[in-house]
Amino acid sequence: MKAARLYEYDPDLKGTEFVRLEDVPEPRIEEPDDVIVRVGGAGLCRTDIHVIQGLWDEALVVEPPYVLGHENAGWVEEVGSGVRHLSPGEAVAVLPGLSCGLCRACRRGVDNLCETLVWIGIQKDGGFAELVRARERNLIRLPNGLTPRDAAPYADAGLTAYHAAKRAAAVVPPDGTAVILGVGGLGHAAIQALRALSPARIVAVDISEVARQLAEDLGVEEVVDGSDSPVERVHDLTQGKGADVVLDFVAEGDVPAQAVAMLRPGGTCLVVGYGGTLEVPTMDLLTEKRIIGNIGGTSAEMLELIALAGRGTIRLEIQEFPLDRINEAIADLRDLRIRGRAVLVP
Amino acid sequence: MKAARLYEYDPDLKGTEFVRLEDVPEPRIEEPDDVIVRVGGAGLCRTDIHVIQGLWDEALVVEPPYVLGHENAGWVEEVGSGVRHLSPGEAVAVLPGLSCGLCRACRRGVDNLCETLVWIGIQKDGGFAELVRARERNLIRLPNGLTPRDAAPYADAGLTAYHAAKRAAAVVPPDGTAVILGVGGLGHAAIQALRALSPARIVAVDISEVARQLAEDLGVEEVVDGSDSPVERVHDLTQGKGADVVLDFVAEGDVPAQAVAMLRPGGTCLVVGYGGTLEVPTMDLLTEKRIIGNIGGTSAEMLELIALAGRGTIRLEIQEFPLDRINEAIADLRDLRIRGRAVLVP
Amino acid sequence: MKAARLYEYDPDLKGTEFVRLEDVPEPRIEEPDDVIVRVGGAGLCRTDIHVIQGLWDEALVVEPPYVLGHENAGWVEEVGSGVRHLSPGEAVAVLPGLSCGLCRACRRGVDNLCETLVWIGIQKDGGFAELVRARERNLIRLPNGLTPRDAAPYADAGLTAYHAAKRAAAVVPPDGTAVILGVGGLGHAAIQALRALSPARIVAVDISEVARQLAEDLGVEEVVDGSDSPVERVHDLTQGKGADVVLDFVAEGDVPAQAVAMLRPGGTCLVVGYGGTLEVPTMDLLTEKRIIGNIGGTSAEMLELIALAGRGTIRLEIQEFPLDRINEAIADLRDLRIRGRAVLVP
Amino acid sequence: MKAARLYEYDPDLKGTEFVRLEDVPEPRIEEPDDVIVRVGGAGLCRTDIHVIQGLWDEALVVEPPYVLGHENAGWVEEVGSGVRHLSPGEAVAVLPGLSCGLCRACRRGVDNLCETLVWIGIQKDGGFAELVRARERNLIRLPNGLTPRDAAPYADAGLTAYHAAKRAAAVVPPDGTAVILGVGGLGHAAIQALRALSPARIVAVDISEVARQLAEDLGVEEVVDGSDSPVERVHDLTQGKGADVVLDFVAEGDVPAQAVAMLRPGGTCLVVGYGGTLEVPTMDLLTEKRIIGNIGGTSAEMLELIALAGRGTIRLEIQEFPLDRINEAIADLRDLRIRGRAVLVP
Repeated sequence: MKAARLYEYDPDLKGTEFVRLEDVPEPRIEEPDDVIVRVGGAGLCRTDIHVIQGLWDEALVVEPPYVLGHENAGWVEEVGSGVRHLSPGEAVAVLPGLSCGLCRACRRGVDNLCETLVWIGIQKDGGFAELVRARERNLIRLPNGLTPRDAAPYADAGLTAYHAAKRAAAVVPPDGTAVILGVGGLGHAAIQALRALSPARIVAVDISEVARQLAEDLGVEEVVDGSDSPVERVHDLTQGKGADVVLDFVAEGDVPAQAVAMLRPGGTCLVVGYGGTLEVPTMDLLTEKRIIGNIGGTSAEMLELIALAGRGTIRLEIQEFPLDRINEAIADLRDLRIRGRAVLVP
Repeated sequence: MKAARLYEYDPDLKGTEFVRLEDVPEPRIEEPDDVIVRVGGAGLCRTDIHVIQGLWDEALVVEPPYVLGHENAGWVEEVGSGVRHLSPGEAVAVLPGLSCGLCRACRRGVDNLCETLVWIGIQKDGGFAELVRARERNLIRLPNGLTPRDAAPYADAGLTAYHAAKRAAAVVPPDGTAVILGVGGLGHAAIQALRALSPARIVAVDISEVARQLAEDLGVEEVVDGSDSPVERVHDLTQGKGADVVLDFVAEGDVPAQAVAMLRPGGTCLVVGYGGTLEVPTMDLLTEKRIIGNIGGTSAEMLELIALAGRGTIRLEIQEFPLDRINEAIADLRDLRIRGRAVLVP
Repeated sequence: MKAARLYEYDPDLKGTEFVRLEDVPEPRIEEPDDVIVRVGGAGLCRTDIHVIQGLWDEALVVEPPYVLGHENAGWVEEVGSGVRHLSPGEAVAVLPGLSCGLCRACRRGVDNLCETLVWIGIQKDGGFAELVRARERNLIRLPNGLTPRDAAPYADAGLTAYHAAKRAAAVVPPDGTAVILGVGGLGHAAIQALRALSPARIVAVDISEVARQLAEDLGVEEVVDGSDSPVERVHDLTQGKGADVVLDFVAEGDVPAQAVAMLRPGGTCLVVGYGGTLEVPTMDLLTEKRIIGNIGGTSAEMLELIALAGRGTIRLEIQEFPLDRINEAIADLRDLRIRGRAVLVP
Repeated sequence: MKAARLYEYDPDLKGTEFVRLEDVPEPRIEEPDDVIVRVGGAGLCRTDIHVIQGLWDEALVVEPPYVLGHENAGWVEEVGSGVRHLSPGEAVAVLPGLSCGLCRACRRGVDNLCETLVWIGIQKDGGFAELVRARERNLIRLPNGLTPRDAAPYADAGLTAYHAAKRAAAVVPPDGTAVILGVGGLGHAAIQALRALSPARIVAVDISEVARQLAEDLGVEEVVDGSDSPVERVHDLTQGKGADVVLDFVAEGDVPAQAVAMLRPGGTCLVVGYGGTLEVPTMDLLTEKRIIGNIGGTSAEMLELIALAGRGTIRLEIQEFPLDRINEAIADLRDLRIRGRAVLVP
């Protein structure tokens, strides 16, 4: 089958052929709960850029070459002998992290922290291909009206944003204020999720005018230019008290420190992005501020998100590329030319 | 192999051969996640009495004859091709409810409410036998020093009590009062679990002097005779305010109404037993009382409980019977001659 | 000043002069935290009907005659020497339950369960008058644009509905189903509050066509006739699983039993209305159903609700009556001729 | 009356007369909810050392001279006209932070985050004196058998430790592991509180042998030398998984980074001490670690703690000094010669 494989890292992203399109053997059922999925769409993610740069090298247990693509949806092609609830032909989203279902974390319902999590498209062959192998646990059936192509970005960008937004909604009072730092793919999903889950006022912050426009189009109450004293602006907008919750989708440069500085006493900073370093004097924590890391979402949250997506409550904008043009899509993502999420279709 | 099978219901328990000991074919691996367990101990439960009486007839999907026994522990004998984490020879407790791991409830970590739960020993062959078939999801590895014989009662009585005690500990303030109604097998486990999880004062209520003695032996602060105005006694002991939480292990006769009447405003009644009817004027709920049903426990809670059992924090008293004498054990349970939990050993 | 006082109970509500309009002495500051409020509006509540019937006789600590009216808003007229945060002229809503601020419940933030709660308009003189005496703790400042006349119904109907809706939102998953039983004054507020707090699907049930029309006008997804097998309808609408949460604003006749029967395993019934009796076999609780009483709301919730009301998120419909026509308003309420909430204006 | 007043800061603590013992006017009732307390004991705290050094200069709104002492207990001497629940002669603990009872935080039950909190003994005259002025809200009645002298350290050290321990107990599973960094006054109270609230295994870490001995005397399961690779030790003790919760009572030097590094995925670091700086790469938060600040405790928690102290569940060791020898006590604290808590008795 056709697949796009990574062969070597390109730290500066100066190349033009980041991955090679080639013919590879089709994946086969190897374990009883394996499921082969015919890919209908595979989202391209900033993490793919990081993988290509070699930033995740240490975490990888397989050596290149392998097939990238961790944000997939498609149709069940074939099921293993132990698969009980899925049949060929059904449309499904593919959760990127393969969880075991049996460890302490999985049994508690926090399978995004599974003790033996393996990432499809990062630690084993992914979905920039015609077929991808997953496990029954990681497949979520799609509702009528949501095609695999449209559903793909929910499997990672959507789920990560939803997970953080749900945590935000749990801590922001209905008359409180939530700040979204970074209105990109995740931020724009988080705004919609938070809007559905809470009547709290939303303040969106971004240094890009395009992103701020997107926030305004989504009906965000207050949109702030991130390069123009955002900490002061948030304090002004909250009568000097600060925000109840901040979702940091940037997490680089000055942003982590700004995020914590924007909080009211007892407020919560949800760190979703990664890259930078957070530095905070412990004396500043005497106001009971909370800093909480985030990774993906649970499979139970994916059930909720897919249901909300099917009803149109949360809509992710996509830009379709044929799989043949994947290197072009990667260059466009690198150069910030993608609007919404690039989705590759084999 | 040797097994004790139920052939027909005995509503009045007047017989002497409740189950028939006979030779039956050994269970075999049928699905990839099946595990055959060599039984080391199988607890005898009041629910077995109810099953023999035919009270669960409606809920049963298999017809007699079948093997009773839902509270089992033993050693892994053989594993299916999809079993990843267990090997022959390992000592395990067997959770009685077979959960799917994939429904909404299982994914959320509340697998005691699995949408397709099937009970071993009630809806399919159980552990009053030399071997029993379970699934990988339902097996919890035992720590060193805890034998299957001793571990068996934790699989149902212990887990149910622990589940309720954990909920109680979550709602009773550290300076509050918890009432245990019924100090039998479950009640005496719940006292120990609650003591481990909360410094709240415990009041134990029972109409039996033996049970009250057991409560005193466990160091319970206040022991009350259930036939002597227990509602008034609880109000007296709490300066007229009432209890923060009541765990009702009886749930028959006047007890459910007493349980609710003992509560302070905002207090919680955890109904664990079953049989009687609860009748409460809605006006009495204007004080924000809470009435909450309970069934078994989650597999994550079983991990916790088994760890606490291994450390000796919670100890269940057992009385061993060889499997050959099962009908005698059933008669003893019927006639209240069992101290602690009867455990059958093949 | 002018005030409407209750002199004697009228169990069958056959009279025409339920309360007497007369001249009474103005209330004065008696304790340092007392505040005299000039009434701008006082809502008429079904509980007033119950008080007039004598149903609350046992709970009353004052003897008639006294001034009814527990749902008030107005302007600060005079403050005691210990009042720190309010000044004459400020517009305020008056929480009906006078809480102490110092007991265990108040310190925990659940001041609707204050150990020494006293109800204005039920246990002491209320707001069907020109002036009413309250305490600083019980006054919530109104935002610009929300007049006391419009704000009055939030003090009891709005707050009670909001309190229950907030609890419902905490237990219904975003892709779940909430059922509202009774779309009257509270129910129609609860629908709006729940809509703001959760994207869960709402099913509204009422036996009155007018009420069902109101639910439809509010955009409720599914509206069910309460006299046409509502339990079956809810199960049909949820693929046989049942509702995640039911808010019972009726709590009379068959409704409490229907409410519990509608629940899925693990589901929650919030009992808000009162009058009838709940009867449930404890065996039916083995699915971990939860039955939870409700009374009013906390003062912290009132802060939230008033903020949402100021932003127009939750709108209560009112029908204004001059205080002189209070007996006419009471008759209209008795005869179900009020649309929304009747508010008396002195 | 006799009082110990601070006149000027001593950054290096080289003096011998840190505060001056002198005769000052007695405090009088000024507001209706004021209460004058005759001091029975006043704890000496490391924060007093910091205040003397001038570290809190910015936060102070009063200028020296003023009376230090924020950890007080005594007997009600006189009450204002608005005090409803206390009478002269009653023994009380004095919460150090004067909260308003009316702001959003107070109404929610988190009065340790009161929007207008004022600290007795730091921002206004404290308890190193014969009398101190407090407010009714801040006084917690003592149970029989707990004298003001013994109760004083619970008002700050005890409460702060209890608050953190209660949060820890809420996140550590019963079969999990909690780490206490620093077994001083707070740490040794936290060990006892955590032991009462959870059966989780406790690991205590300190660089001082005396402190480690104290941890062992308290029955801590694992005691680790903080200067000997504590991060590795914690990982070894948890099969490489890390701790579920870490309570950092040190928060200086390398300790904050060690605290975060010790956590398992999803684990929680409660920062209680202050002084140092926390620096963490946002990529390290991808495992959903949580860092949470702490300040004091709520007044509801103080009710719980005092009840547990009265029952002997949590015991704080004290070393009594007459108020006349306060400068000697301060020098002893500076030079680490105090065992447990120094309490000044007028």
